Amino acid sequence: MKVEELQFEFNHLLPQQRQNKEKTHLGVAELSPSPVVCPDDDGDGGFETVIDGEDEDCFVQPMNFAMVDNGIFRSGFPQPANFSFLKSLGLRSIVYLCPEPYPEESLEFLKSSGIKLHQFGIDGRKEPFVSIPEDTVCEALRVVLDPKNHPVLIHCKRGKHRTGCVVGCFRKLQKWCLSSVFDEYIRFAAAKARISDLRFVESFDISSLSAHLPLSFTFSQRR
Amino acid sequence: MKVEELQFEFNHLLPQQRQNKEKTHLGVAELSPSPVVCPDDDGDGGFETVIDGEDEDCFVQPMNFAMVDNGIFRSGFPQPANFSFLKSLGLRSIVYLCPEPYPEESLEFLKSSGIKLHQFGIDGRKEPFVSIPEDTVCEALRVVLDPKNHPVLIHCKRGKHRTGCVVGCFRKLQKWCLSSVFDEYIRFAAAKARISDLRFVESFDISSLSAHLPLSFTFSQRR
Repeated sequence: MKVEELQFEFNHLLPQQRQNKEKTHLGVAELSPSPVVCPDDDGDGGFETVIDGEDEDCFVQPMNFAMVDNGIFRSGFPQPANFSFLKSLGLRSIVYLCPEPYPEESLEFLKSSGIKLHQFGIDGRKEPFVSIPEDTVCEALRVVLDPKNHPVLIHCKRGKHRTGCVVGCFRKLQKWCLSSVFDEYIRFAAAKARISDLRFVESFDISSLSAHLPLSFTFSQRR
Repeated sequence: MKVEELQFEFNHLLPQQRQNKEKTHLGVAELSPSPVVCPDDDGDGGFETVIDGEDEDCFVQPMNFAMVDNGIFRSGFPQPANFSFLKSLGLRSIVYLCPEPYPEESLEFLKSSGIKLHQFGIDGRKEPFVSIPEDTVCEALRVVLDPKNHPVLIHCKRGKHRTGCVVGCFRKLQKWCLSSVFDEYIRFAAAKARISDLRFVESFDISSLSAHLPLSFTFSQRR
């Protein structure tokens, strides 16, 4: 079975299973998945509607969620269904990489959870229209590298391009070889991988940030 | 640019770049990439030759390397080029999920680094020929869940199927919803994703392991 077929079956099956579970356990219409409006990833400033649900029995992770290192996480745009999971991470800060304003509901969640929002508005459009601003990525990385901000979640819209670039530059600071940095980028960006992002990461100069790298960050010195 | 083209360019470009770097920095023939024989992933018991290199300037991660949680890592089969990186992780144990014996060179590395090998021989062939043994996965998870074994690296051959199943079951213990568990599995398995693996993870009964879950493992209780 090809992954396309698999994903079709998966996309087809899961929402129904989740809905059934909600009906069985909670039995109320107002708890069924509600649509959430979120900026889309085409970089054209458009929006899309995402259907998401919340389940008392399990945590719903934001798309493309993963642990980058101790106290550093990455993901796509968190939906209200993900708030209980984010709360469980004990986040102290969020590094948000898009220029669009944060949704009101999300701001309220951050406020009630004591999470500080650090916004770095990087345009999500592809080259040749837009290039990634190196100084903005540097500023975002300074927040990510400061343990006082941990646990921190880095996110953009889909957790692929802008997040992938910031994490890629972080890996260079950790002295990962480029092939492993790119392997990780491609794992998240998949069919949407952009060679312009890889070139950005490859040419990114870490020298101004090396002094900001806490000793505890390199694996060898952490233990 | 499609990911296939990107990966072609990437595969084409990187080894040359790495070789050039080695030539420039180290300038010795015996340090250029040497082929390593490793079991392949078709489940037919065959082997393949992997070209890999080592660079004093940076760490070379095993394929599909990632952090699963604090003290828990996952990857494909580590090559000698990855040993310095593995050493930097301060690993205490390796959970190896294939029936094939560990290569002599790798055993020597484990011995010199004080890393304990826990082998759980799970046949890598696809259904309908072979099904994943639930009790073996349980045994492997007991090792993974025991903090006395941390930091621990879980690996099979490519870090896709067997490792993906064990990590998927681990996520169920962490109360991740199935859609996120599958999302993570597919991110590593990509075009090689197997619906039989997803079915295994979905039907895997965590009740016998819940008592083994250290409190510190759930995000909410860790902080």
